[in-house]
Amino acid sequence: MEKEKLTDVPLHQIQIKDAFWDKYIRLVKDVILPYQWNTLNDNVKDAAPSHCIKNFKIAAGEAEGDFEGAVFQDTDVAKWLEAVAFTLDSSGRDEKLEKLADETIDLIGKAQCEDGYLNTYFTIKEPDRRWTNLKEGHELYTAGHMIEAAVAYYNATGKRKFLDIVSRFADLICETFGPEEGKCHGYPGHPEVELALVKLYRATGQKRYLDLAKYFIDTRGVGENYFFQEEKKEKYQQIFPEFAGYVPEYSQSHLPVREQKTAEGHAVRAVYLYSAMADLAYEYQDETLLDACKTLWNNMTEKRMYITGGIGSSGLLERFTTDYDLPNDRNYSESCASIGLAMFGNRMAQITKDAKYADIVEKALYNTVLAGIAMDGKSFFYVNPLEVWPDNCIERTSMEHVKPVRQKWFGVACCPPNIARTLASLGQYIYGADENSLYINLYISSQTKLLIGETETEVIMESSFLKDGTVTVHLESEKASKGTLALRIPGYTKEFTVWRGVQRIETPLIKKGYLMITDLAASEEIKISCDMKARFVYANPKVRADEGKACIMRGPLVYCLEETDNGENLSSLYVDTKEALTENWEEQLLGGVMSVEAKGKRILEDHWTAEELYKEQPPELKNVTLKAVPYCYWGNRKTGEMAVWIRQLI
Amino acid sequence: MEKEKLTDVPLHQIQIKDAFWDKYIRLVKDVILPYQWNTLNDNVKDAAPSHCIKNFKIAAGEAEGDFEGAVFQDTDVAKWLEAVAFTLDSSGRDEKLEKLADETIDLIGKAQCEDGYLNTYFTIKEPDRRWTNLKEGHELYTAGHMIEAAVAYYNATGKRKFLDIVSRFADLICETFGPEEGKCHGYPGHPEVELALVKLYRATGQKRYLDLAKYFIDTRGVGENYFFQEEKKEKYQQIFPEFAGYVPEYSQSHLPVREQKTAEGHAVRAVYLYSAMADLAYEYQDETLLDACKTLWNNMTEKRMYITGGIGSSGLLERFTTDYDLPNDRNYSESCASIGLAMFGNRMAQITKDAKYADIVEKALYNTVLAGIAMDGKSFFYVNPLEVWPDNCIERTSMEHVKPVRQKWFGVACCPPNIARTLASLGQYIYGADENSLYINLYISSQTKLLIGETETEVIMESSFLKDGTVTVHLESEKASKGTLALRIPGYTKEFTVWRGVQRIETPLIKKGYLMITDLAASEEIKISCDMKARFVYANPKVRADEGKACIMRGPLVYCLEETDNGENLSSLYVDTKEALTENWEEQLLGGVMSVEAKGKRILEDHWTAEELYKEQPPELKNVTLKAVPYCYWGNRKTGEMAVWIRQLI
Repeated sequence: MEKEKLTDVPLHQIQIKDAFWDKYIRLVKDVILPYQWNTLNDNVKDAAPSHCIKNFKIAAGEAEGDFEGAVFQDTDVAKWLEAVAFTLDSSGRDEKLEKLADETIDLIGKAQCEDGYLNTYFTIKEPDRRWTNLKEGHELYTAGHMIEAAVAYYNATGKRKFLDIVSRFADLICETFGPEEGKCHGYPGHPEVELALVKLYRATGQKRYLDLAKYFIDTRGVGENYFFQEEKKEKYQQIFPEFAGYVPEYSQSHLPVREQKTAEGHAVRAVYLYSAMADLAYEYQDETLLDACKTLWNNMTEKRMYITGGIGSSGLLERFTTDYDLPNDRNYSESCASIGLAMFGNRMAQITKDAKYADIVEKALYNTVLAGIAMDGKSFFYVNPLEVWPDNCIERTSMEHVKPVRQKWFGVACCPPNIARTLASLGQYIYGADENSLYINLYISSQTKLLIGETETEVIMESSFLKDGTVTVHLESEKASKGTLALRIPGYTKEFTVWRGVQRIETPLIKKGYLMITDLAASEEIKISCDMKARFVYANPKVRADEGKACIMRGPLVYCLEETDNGENLSSLYVDTKEALTENWEEQLLGGVMSVEAKGKRILEDHWTAEELYKEQPPELKNVTLKAVPYCYWGNRKTGEMAVWIRQLI
Repeated sequence: MEKEKLTDVPLHQIQIKDAFWDKYIRLVKDVILPYQWNTLNDNVKDAAPSHCIKNFKIAAGEAEGDFEGAVFQDTDVAKWLEAVAFTLDSSGRDEKLEKLADETIDLIGKAQCEDGYLNTYFTIKEPDRRWTNLKEGHELYTAGHMIEAAVAYYNATGKRKFLDIVSRFADLICETFGPEEGKCHGYPGHPEVELALVKLYRATGQKRYLDLAKYFIDTRGVGENYFFQEEKKEKYQQIFPEFAGYVPEYSQSHLPVREQKTAEGHAVRAVYLYSAMADLAYEYQDETLLDACKTLWNNMTEKRMYITGGIGSSGLLERFTTDYDLPNDRNYSESCASIGLAMFGNRMAQITKDAKYADIVEKALYNTVLAGIAMDGKSFFYVNPLEVWPDNCIERTSMEHVKPVRQKWFGVACCPPNIARTLASLGQYIYGADENSLYINLYISSQTKLLIGETETEVIMESSFLKDGTVTVHLESEKASKGTLALRIPGYTKEFTVWRGVQRIETPLIKKGYLMITDLAASEEIKISCDMKARFVYANPKVRADEGKACIMRGPLVYCLEETDNGENLSSLYVDTKEALTENWEEQLLGGVMSVEAKGKRILEDHWTAEELYKEQPPELKNVTLKAVPYCYWGNRKTGEMAVWIRQLI
């Protein structure tokens, strides 16, 4: 393992100004945060009521009433606060927003119990049942989101109040859980607090938080399953009816984490757990744990991941199924799961300095995560299919989880705020730094300032990467730094050219997928131009759902066909992969987009009447031109069919 | 409407001796009835306990304990008794079996309440809640099965006891339900009693039973939905958690039945309802009701039916979805639904004397219904997919309802006894008669004796239809009858030849799909030879799941590929529909079967490593020969993949 991993460049040191991303990032502050604030306060007329702030007011003694919402309802406030924190950090302080956040933090402080406990569900509704159902109670999960939000707010504002609140709670958790006799030897049913405790350790320097995270990881799945022991205890009470028939794989508690070889169970739980495993592997320089992370990463990304970076292919229970089982129409592929995949991948990239991880981070962010949000920021996908026929997305059928139209909000509203916090903290995925090097993982136009080899360096990245594959990085400092600039060469790039100033580098130095520019001068202009031609991509033939089909990609972007461009019945289309693809920049389409045209054929409906369902009439085809647009933009025009994988003419 | 519909030839007048069917029919008496008897008595070690007989003993005061099982548990006994009755009727009386049945009927009599009420769930468990939840309570459904069994037993044995028991119950139902003030104006949540009441009317001549059936049909879906009114009443209590979010379409109570244009909701409920509608349309010469039957039939068979005769394409709630939504791998297509389709189709065939209905009856029986039972009679499919990959049939995922292996029994055990009673009464689907004609719908070797135009006629049908398309029908009587023999010309037959004696009929008289042989002589030998070549069949291109795919059929039999014959990964196969199919009679295979070979190609896995999931590697193919076997036999050898629809080389 590398002794020194890459670390994030602080968000306030990064200014993003990118044609592709700005429109989304802008939405966070302008649309999503105000909308979510209204939702948390039950002020949105046609959205499911959240009751979130009300719960805190009740717990704080400022309002009367019963707890309402899910057992993890508090996390919506936490994720909103975290997104606010990232926004203040990355877009600059905003008095009005900060005031709202401060007031909310004050309220949270009042809702905290004397002993530090913080959870409105248990405080209001089940005060005697604290920590009695770790499988379903989500207390540690909720604590994790509170901690993450508090650390982000502290980093953004320097204000300690929220950090102190969660530290008191974390201290209580440290007193409650651990290997010592008399403490609870359980672990969370939904991992999340582990990675949050690592963040809290890094913010406060208190090693006990790190040790507790390690304890949760090390004890998971060891010996007789804790959750089954728990069920036999007196105060245990089932919370979710769908947990009947629970299997420990669901929460990755079927085996000690170091012995797990395949990505199992609920996908979000899995990637949150793996993220913490990666953190701890680094902090404790634990090679065995890092090996487990690599094994799980490989299984997940080489056998169980959609080409869009979606994971969790079962519509029921949002879970992994089996290798190569990647149905396109009935899958789950939760937006949050792809966010978690990016979190895990970013950690692995930072620890290993291997570009293969950032390839997947880019895939998840540019495709599934962005598909999760409408271009106006007002509606969201929870589920991200790769093929949709709106007519059969019917309630109370096995397709009921698939929505052909983004939804305003959700009863379980994890995805919208999760997307918001990801967009607001995008900088963490762009840059990574160690003592002597700056790594660039995503080619997003931005500028930053940081120390490279003790030399303060200003970095200006001008990227038209998605349009033409070209990126220019300017480095300016007072003196030569002897440092290194590492530029990720995406795995999908077939050829690329690099210039250092006017000089083309003929034999570039590549290390684990990064182009290394060493011995940086005081002023540098590095230009890289990658092949960005639209291409056909195929799935391993073991993926039964994609056999005989092709997908169009361009750079990191997966493309799809939409009914709007191609007429109805997308299943009747064939693509001719022997014919060249044509690219067209369309300034007026979807905010400016490179659309791609392919030659193909369409099965005709001639010779079939409405009365005929089956007969001896072989298909007849006509030539057509297919038009594809980026998957992340699907469903932003008229509601209709969509398909990523297109049957090939063989 | 025809003034005189076709009627069944009584089962005891039909002797079946058929190479294809005998092996199944034999199983009913030899395997299924004894096995089910043991199940009903909880004497099968590794099967889910039924508790059925125990419930009756408790209700009869002969045993202590609580009711166990589903609210409709009694129907398992009813269906067993009905299958026993049909077996006694068709295979000849059997003292031992009849004794078991008589004892069971005695027990049922003792379990009947003084007022005639008969239902162990409500008698034991909820005596105060009779008729308070028609939506979920299944009381009328259960009554229906009891009545059907009793009528069958009376027809088979002439014994009245069971008929009297159910008549007393039916009288109570007549007193309880109806349009009069003070009576309950509800109708069954699960249709079934309607068609049973028609049978009871036909057996007893009591018109009140027919009128009540008509009332149930006429009041269904009229005005404010009865089931929603019911929920507001004091004694109402929800029974099934999955009924939360109930929509009236589920039980076809969303509209008056005459206004329903599309087959909606739970598929078994639908076809049981439609069967009763057909019965009543005839009995009351109600053209509007018959038109509704035709509209629903057409929607169902022209837009919502699998090529195997399976119906109900949603894995959740066993229901219809939308036109052309016929996914092959995640569908439900319950065995019972195809039985109900055959019941409805047989009624429509009898009323309209149009062969198109019998085409579908044949399709359902020869494919889905037979697939529902193992060739050894010991295990059953509830769900009948058209494509299976055993690896992804995983519990607690959206594929959990799909089983790649037939199951011994089920918690809700409707399908096994339903298949048994269908096999035991197969004769009803072979022949139909009116005053002057004998109609032959299924070419199953058998003999019968009946009046054709007042002349007692002996009919001997020798069929090798499934092997070579040939059937010979011998008619022997004392004198010429002036009657008609109507032979169904299957819709899939492209050409056929008919001989009357040694004379080939050059211009056969065809009426609504039947070949009419008129003015029957005292002795006739009619031979018909239909084209029986294996053929490729295609789906309407609106069926997205089947586009670009072909299915192999031969006569009524749908064929499928199995992993046993074709290796793993059936999705990698293409069939060349321009190449001829080859037929091979394999005496040793699956009890003697015509297998079919096709030319095709297979996508190779060369050039792909286990680490590669997506890349720019177009598929490479090699030539292969595909081998198909009848779908009804799938899963009788090694467990493996199966596929009905095969991608075509375009």
